[in-house]
Amino acid sequence: MKETHAIPGYTFGTRAIARSPVTLGDFELMKRSILFDDEDVKYLRLSRGIVADQVEAILDVWYGFVGSQPHLLASFTDRADGKPLGDYLGAVRKRFGQWILDTAAAEYDQRWLDYQHEIGLRHHRAKKNHTDGAASTAIVPFRDLFPLIYPVTFTLRPFLASKGHAAGDVEKMYAAWLKSCLLQMTLWTYPYIKDGDF
Amino acid sequence: MKETHAIPGYTFGTRAIARSPVTLGDFELMKRSILFDDEDVKYLRLSRGIVADQVEAILDVWYGFVGSQPHLLASFTDRADGKPLGDYLGAVRKRFGQWILDTAAAEYDQRWLDYQHEIGLRHHRAKKNHTDGAASTAIVPFRDLFPLIYPVTFTLRPFLASKGHAAGDVEKMYAAWLKSCLLQMTLWTYPYIKDGDF
Ligand code: HEM
Ligand code: HEM
Repeated sequence: MKETHAIPGYTFGTRAIARSPVTLGDFELMKRSILFDDEDVKYLRLSRGIVADQVEAILDVWYGFVGSQPHLLASFTDRADGKPLGDYLGAVRKRFGQWILDTAAAEYDQRWLDYQHEIGLRHHRAKKNHTDGAASTAIVPFRDLFPLIYPVTFTLRPFLASKGHAAGDVEKMYAAWLKSCLLQMTLWTYPYIKDGDF
Repeated sequence: MKETHAIPGYTFGTRAIARSPVTLGDFELMKRSILFDDEDVKYLRLSRGIVADQVEAILDVWYGFVGSQPHLLASFTDRADGKPLGDYLGAVRKRFGQWILDTAAAEYDQRWLDYQHEIGLRHHRAKKNHTDGAASTAIVPFRDLFPLIYPVTFTLRPFLASKGHAAGDVEKMYAAWLKSCLLQMTLWTYPYIKDGDF
């Protein structure tokens, strides 16, 4: 949640970020729709100490999954010759690592909300490739965004369980991650939605 | 999956249904993105025998949840005076019950795909209220659709566990339901997405 100047393009909390069209009040109602409460905040924060020193291993699993599926990897390829763009993959990976820590920090203020909108714009044709000057495809298609939540949270589970926490606590951390991803992805997909339909 | 003429407005497999803009080939790739495979089909079908005689009890829980949250119930209210429309709630409930059985049947042919698109249109301003001639609000807002998947699947769990199946099997049925809901909701939200962004 800090301004981590060490990560190129990670502009959380800076003036480069526009205000989210979704209000904190809207977000409160979305939390109610998904039964997200203080318990979830507690279990996300509990997970922070568990995932903090495993970020690279987690990213290896997630990148391995995306890399193994041509229709997913396509979003990281050169739009001219279809080859994976190593620099682009590497630059996004650093911000993805920070996102793991931010998700586990579970601090939902206006700056957080604004950055969720920015992450959405970066998947959408509005701003994909801009941050890293990548010569990649124009948009991450909507159809794969929500489905990817399952592999991401499911493969996180063994990491959550890797430090000896009780099975019930691991289960609650997993549920909190699943809910948080569904909420975030909903915020992220705002730019994909027709005006007035969000 | 049958043409159940007993349920008003349930037009699965009839000529009233247009072709889905998503192809079965697209859907195959979506399944890969979410790690949905034959195991999931197997566990969805296993769940059919468990949920079949509990449909009304499951609907009581789900309707209870929606009814307890004014911002959700709003989609079932009279657009003029904001009061819940009992006839509308009741008519949709019958099709919702059939949907539980269809989801557990896990048969993914062109007719199934086409009806998913129809369900999406019925949540969207394109066709909401048409089926039942309801005088309700114009659209179910996008922002609550994916979040509701969590309470729906989470509250299904005790029903899946209620007939003495091994914990591991209950877990696999739950995971298959979660994946199926994420896939279906992605298909349903097609009408909400800007042209070319799906
Ligand atoms: C659970 C689902 C997903 C999560 C949690 C996720 C997370 C992230 C994060 C944290 C970033 C970096 C944001 C930043 O710049 O700070 C990112 C960027 C990106 N993601 Fe995703 N993502 C998901 C789904 C997908 C899918 C399905 C694809 C398609 C393969 C995808 C492709 C990309 C690409 C291409 C970027 C770089 C965008 C740019 O040019 O800035 N993501 N994602
Ligand atoms: C997991 C999430 C959801 C599931 C599984 C679900 C399922 C369904 C099903 C099966 C139907 C009947 C489709 C048919 O006509 O055959 C339906 C209709 C409807 N749903 Fe949902 N739904 C979900 C989310 C929501 C949410 C968040 C709302 C808002 C409160 C909502 C409001 C409605 C309304 C108003 C209708 C009637 C639409 C019409 O006028 O035909 N649904 N839903």
